[in-house]
Amino acid sequence: MWLKNAWYVAGHAAEIVPGTLVARRLLNQPVVLWRTDAGQAVAFRDRCPHRLVPLSMGKHDGDAIVCGYHGMRFGADGMCNHIPAQEQIPQKARATAYPLVERHALLWIWMGDAAQADAALIPDLHWMQSEGWVPSEGYLHIAADYRLVTDNLLDLSHESFIHTRTIGDDVVAQTPVRSDVVNEHVVRAHREMPNIEAPPFFARLMGDPEARIDRFQTALFHPPGLNITFVKIRPAGATNQSFDGRATHMLTPETERSTHYFWAFARNFVLEDAELTDFVRQATAATFDEDKAMLEAQQLGIEEEPETPLPQLALRVDGAPMQARRLLAKLVSQERLGHVMKTAELQHV
Amino acid sequence: MWLKNAWYVAGHAAEIVPGTLVARRLLNQPVVLWRTDAGQAVAFRDRCPHRLVPLSMGKHDGDAIVCGYHGMRFGADGMCNHIPAQEQIPQKARATAYPLVERHALLWIWMGDAAQADAALIPDLHWMQSEGWVPSEGYLHIAADYRLVTDNLLDLSHESFIHTRTIGDDVVAQTPVRSDVVNEHVVRAHREMPNIEAPPFFARLMGDPEARIDRFQTALFHPPGLNITFVKIRPAGATNQSFDGRATHMLTPETERSTHYFWAFARNFVLEDAELTDFVRQATAATFDEDKAMLEAQQLGIEEEPETPLPQLALRVDGAPMQARRLLAKLVSQERLGHVMKTAELQHV
Amino acid sequence: MWLKNAWYVAGHAAEIVPGTLVARRLLNQPVVLWRTDAGQAVAFRDRCPHRLVPLSMGKHDGDAIVCGYHGMRFGADGMCNHIPAQEQIPQKARATAYPLVERHALLWIWMGDAAQADAALIPDLHWMQSEGWVPSEGYLHIAADYRLVTDNLLDLSHESFIHTRTIGDDVVAQTPVRSDVVNEHVVRAHREMPNIEAPPFFARLMGDPEARIDRFQTALFHPPGLNITFVKIRPAGATNQSFDGRATHMLTPETERSTHYFWAFARNFVLEDAELTDFVRQATAATFDEDKAMLEAQQLGIEEEPETPLPQLALRVDGAPMQARRLLAKLVSQERLGHVMKTAELQHV
Repeated sequence: MWLKNAWYVAGHAAEIVPGTLVARRLLNQPVVLWRTDAGQAVAFRDRCPHRLVPLSMGKHDGDAIVCGYHGMRFGADGMCNHIPAQEQIPQKARATAYPLVERHALLWIWMGDAAQADAALIPDLHWMQSEGWVPSEGYLHIAADYRLVTDNLLDLSHESFIHTRTIGDDVVAQTPVRSDVVNEHVVRAHREMPNIEAPPFFARLMGDPEARIDRFQTALFHPPGLNITFVKIRPAGATNQSFDGRATHMLTPETERSTHYFWAFARNFVLEDAELTDFVRQATAATFDEDKAMLEAQQLGIEEEPETPLPQLALRVDGAPMQARRLLAKLVSQERLGHVMKTAELQHV
Repeated sequence: MWLKNAWYVAGHAAEIVPGTLVARRLLNQPVVLWRTDAGQAVAFRDRCPHRLVPLSMGKHDGDAIVCGYHGMRFGADGMCNHIPAQEQIPQKARATAYPLVERHALLWIWMGDAAQADAALIPDLHWMQSEGWVPSEGYLHIAADYRLVTDNLLDLSHESFIHTRTIGDDVVAQTPVRSDVVNEHVVRAHREMPNIEAPPFFARLMGDPEARIDRFQTALFHPPGLNITFVKIRPAGATNQSFDGRATHMLTPETERSTHYFWAFARNFVLEDAELTDFVRQATAATFDEDKAMLEAQQLGIEEEPETPLPQLALRVDGAPMQARRLLAKLVSQERLGHVMKTAELQHV
Repeated sequence: MWLKNAWYVAGHAAEIVPGTLVARRLLNQPVVLWRTDAGQAVAFRDRCPHRLVPLSMGKHDGDAIVCGYHGMRFGADGMCNHIPAQEQIPQKARATAYPLVERHALLWIWMGDAAQADAALIPDLHWMQSEGWVPSEGYLHIAADYRLVTDNLLDLSHESFIHTRTIGDDVVAQTPVRSDVVNEHVVRAHREMPNIEAPPFFARLMGDPEARIDRFQTALFHPPGLNITFVKIRPAGATNQSFDGRATHMLTPETERSTHYFWAFARNFVLEDAELTDFVRQATAATFDEDKAMLEAQQLGIEEEPETPLPQLALRVDGAPMQARRLLAKLVSQERLGHVMKTAELQHV
């Protein structure tokens, strides 16, 4: 159901500050995220090796965390370096540390075979943290299989029915979509909507409630859980102007039926406008909340009929979601045979 | 456990108005109830055939409903008549429509073999909607097997212990009951209580807190889930006067362990008194809420001991409940062999 | 997992007053506790033998309780002595009565073979109710296996990490503990902490925020669920003075994963000070609430890894907990072979 040997987003980097222990279930494993005083972000299995209590109920102490039950102290490498009233430290006295890399303002965790954790395989999401881009970030918990969220993001015709208050209008669903499998780790779905009335979100981005725009939308999937919506808008016909947005959706399975949805909408225009940054954050959160309601209902519907294939009835808009499902299933099969996906090249639009 | 080829009450007719989609689980199936602009009540399985999301999350649109996820549009017959950006409509693109009949101010659904759905099999509950009768209606959800509610309604001795604030007094339990199996689809239990102090509910109906009355009570069961309590009261000894009430209990299994309890108390006296109608509604609701607490506790008790027969210990008052259980079990067995109950004749008292 | 032929605490005696029916699950059995007008405390299985509803939903009536559904009346011996509208009382019409003894201000229940229920096997907790002692009592529900609570109480090094606001300081965990199996039904763990700064709780007991004390702590376990912490403090070096406290922890399994934690802290000094009695109650409750949070988290951690032995990694402080586990497991095995633990001798420190 999910790849083990892959980088997953464990959190926005800014969430984890020294002194705070964050408990989070990832791929159905309990994880505690913390940061040393020196600034290194660390991920442990959230269980003390002594009596299985959560280490996240303990305390941060400089370059270590101390279990809140009996005081065992674990350094950033997971090794125990203090046990009260006991001088000898058993070899098994260690917390399980997962490879964790901080990049693009995100924490990337590798929960499979640690020997294969190669930071070069982390996909390039430089717009999350680079000059010329301003991200609006957020997080959403969704009580649904993460693959349903990818289905959702690769068939954006739903914007016309779910998101009419922000990014949706009749045009999206009426516009045919072109989808293709770019290569063995990228699926893409593209839609062009020239000379339309700007839906509310885009009208605000353009600063013009009456704006007519050309709208281009490319949804891209990279396994296991990365989706990027490349958004391009411009005043209708103004080929010399372009406003780019990159809605970046980082899906990490919490359990088989729930998902951590870390997201950011990065833009390359009007960078200094903090109010706009905040508007984008709020509008995006409101939009994804609408998806959440539908996805959670869908999850319940599917659980009642576990034998039913999905989609039960394939429409034209299901091309990209089905391609992505097949691609992911193939990678999971290959992983069982010992292969590890060896590239992070996204081949952007 | 329950008959499939039978009419069940899906709702009070007045609940379903054009523009509103009502989701309700019936016989452990998700159902959406809606009404066309022309006034036809419709029941669909509450799943879009595309991706299994609830149709009840969509929108009513004239003579159709539109799925809230990707915009498929289904007419009252269940057939899809529009898919966005797709001209060809696949044959499988249809919602499952259940036979639904509006009669006696109720919506009757048939969830078994649609070919056998004969509206002539709907029992005659004309007092729910006819001259000379005024009903006070309500609904209650009970987290218990619907058969426990029938047990309750066929042994009214419990009124003396549960319902002392409204219809109960010591007399009910002290009065012997006569029960009989009228025929293969009707069980009856009868009690006569001449010249008694009127319990509070009846005193109010008589408009006299000091009233002495003759009270007659006949509980009738008609499978699968209809119970009627025929209530007759009169001033003690006044053989030329009679006040009739028909407490009508329409039980529809939600799941194996929960019940939709649609009810009405119809009376044939002081018809114009709206305040009295409201009093009857409130008193009846309060009374059935008391049953709910006991029945839900009983359900939990039974679930802990699934092997224990019920009643564990049969008392004299258990005659009618046991006859009804046997009758229902026989009909369920017969249905498995292909028989369908072919009569709705209630043979009223 | 638990002994059946043993006395368990079912409640503080003061909880059960005539007129009130208390429902409580003990050893995964539903129990109703009540008291006759004459003062006898009674425990029944909380199910009416008629239709399995909880007797605790009925009413107390003098020397009997009356089922709230159909009015069967049961005397203190469990025998039914009245059925409405029915003269003959079937032999099976009886509630299951458990042996129940009131002693030391506690109600002791025996849920195994009633023939073996010997009140002489109730351990001597006279300090709960005798001259020279004042108890501060309380109750806590813990969603964890009762054995985890015993583990907690036999390794008090956790006071240094969980209870720093009341009874904990660094000294406890730093002080080596001596544990021993006194005999086949008593395990003991002992710690001496001479000439220390009094932690907040003890400073208040001494009436001196600056107090230095000698502190002695003996944890004693007696199966199945009794733990006593013998607490002795005195002004540092004052061998002619001694303040004794007995924290008495009476653990009764509710289910396999939850525990009734009845407790009292009895002291033999400043007996008349009601404010101190109240302070002890509040401080003890606050202290045990801290354990509750940790124990419930531990229970969830263990449930995820049912195959993992506990402790996964044994430290020096785990001596007494492991001895107690072995002792209990042995008694459970012996019980399966027909043996009953035949002594209640605690051999106090």
